[in-house]
Amino acid sequence: MEEREISRAVIGRLPRYYRYLGELLDAGVERISSNDLSKKMSVTASQIRQDLNNFGGFGQQGYGYNVKYLYTEIGKILGLNRQHNMIIIGAGNLGQALANYASFEKSGFSLKGLFDVNPRLEGVSIRGIPVRMMDELKDFLKHNEIEIAALTIPKSKAIEVADLLVANGIKAIWNFAHTDLNLPDDVIVESVHLSDSLMKLSYNITSYNEEHGSKA
Amino acid sequence: MEEREISRAVIGRLPRYYRYLGELLDAGVERISSNDLSKKMSVTASQIRQDLNNFGGFGQQGYGYNVKYLYTEIGKILGLNRQHNMIIIGAGNLGQALANYASFEKSGFSLKGLFDVNPRLEGVSIRGIPVRMMDELKDFLKHNEIEIAALTIPKSKAIEVADLLVANGIKAIWNFAHTDLNLPDDVIVESVHLSDSLMKLSYNITSYNEEHGSKA
Repeated sequence: MEEREISRAVIGRLPRYYRYLGELLDAGVERISSNDLSKKMSVTASQIRQDLNNFGGFGQQGYGYNVKYLYTEIGKILGLNRQHNMIIIGAGNLGQALANYASFEKSGFSLKGLFDVNPRLEGVSIRGIPVRMMDELKDFLKHNEIEIAALTIPKSKAIEVADLLVANGIKAIWNFAHTDLNLPDDVIVESVHLSDSLMKLSYNITSYNEEHGSKA
Repeated sequence: MEEREISRAVIGRLPRYYRYLGELLDAGVERISSNDLSKKMSVTASQIRQDLNNFGGFGQQGYGYNVKYLYTEIGKILGLNRQHNMIIIGAGNLGQALANYASFEKSGFSLKGLFDVNPRLEGVSIRGIPVRMMDELKDFLKHNEIEIAALTIPKSKAIEVADLLVANGIKAIWNFAHTDLNLPDDVIVESVHLSDSLMKLSYNITSYNEEHGSKA
């Protein structure tokens, strides 16, 4: 297949396609036209066609998309057809929330370990995974093939811990710490900055109120 | 001031500017050139200048930016110069994690209430805020001016609860449920889809491995 650079915007939309197709599958829908999918997703039908054409199309003019096939193929593009072993660093509320999302397991993300510095969490288990202390991390990484580390720890420790993870072979970090990590180019980082998201909400409230003359 | 449509991409970058400027402020930096800021943030200096020009510039050629002034002005643009009263629906791990982020309070987001359906959470308090049962929600919204509701509940309940919130005057929803909400146009929704983010990470791992010939 021809190799092409896929734009970040397209990649950013793929999980949303995957989510909607999963909902359609659950609802027993076998086939959907790009028009119906576009209404459901509030994007234009031509956007959908363009996006999917990046990966070879998947649809036949006039027949719409086979939901199951499209779901499976997008899953493959997203790398969900293989298992990703994951650990979570930081077993506070956020770490525990992530550990409890059983739906991640369904998509191939397999939680193998949970780590924290808080001795009160030692012995606590989440979905059968015990919380281990940070001093066990190096050894754990030596004996387990872990691909992804989720970082749910305060900003003050994030950079130090990220460096430790990378030094011990972690190649992908799902970062929730309130800071950007500057890691080597071969380490893949995806950050979820919750406060950035809240500020976007605040911006949108503010500009809506200004436009509509509500109290500011 | 002249009214202009600001692109979503620019708005999406503002919280990041705010975050970096806050770090500079904390570090006692008074002035920064767009070049130095660009190195720190890994964006081009011309991008920074273009972005900030949307709001009138803030910098004088050759003098760089006054960090505190720029931080304050971006804060105003983001609507952080006034208080946003917030409630959280869903006091599980994720709801509690959000409730515990003291840094939100610092930015003007004031947590006023926490709601859940789980009777075992009744009487639990987080940072002095008691968890209330959902049947108290309507009455609570009548007697308190709440602007934002964070939705940290399962997808199966999210749409119903969002409708209830909107019917009771909520104008902004910070949505963590694994579904998009289709609400009236005057309701502002900002969604954090954690699984979308994890899938983007997986995509990036997969395409990195393909490019570099690692095991897939």
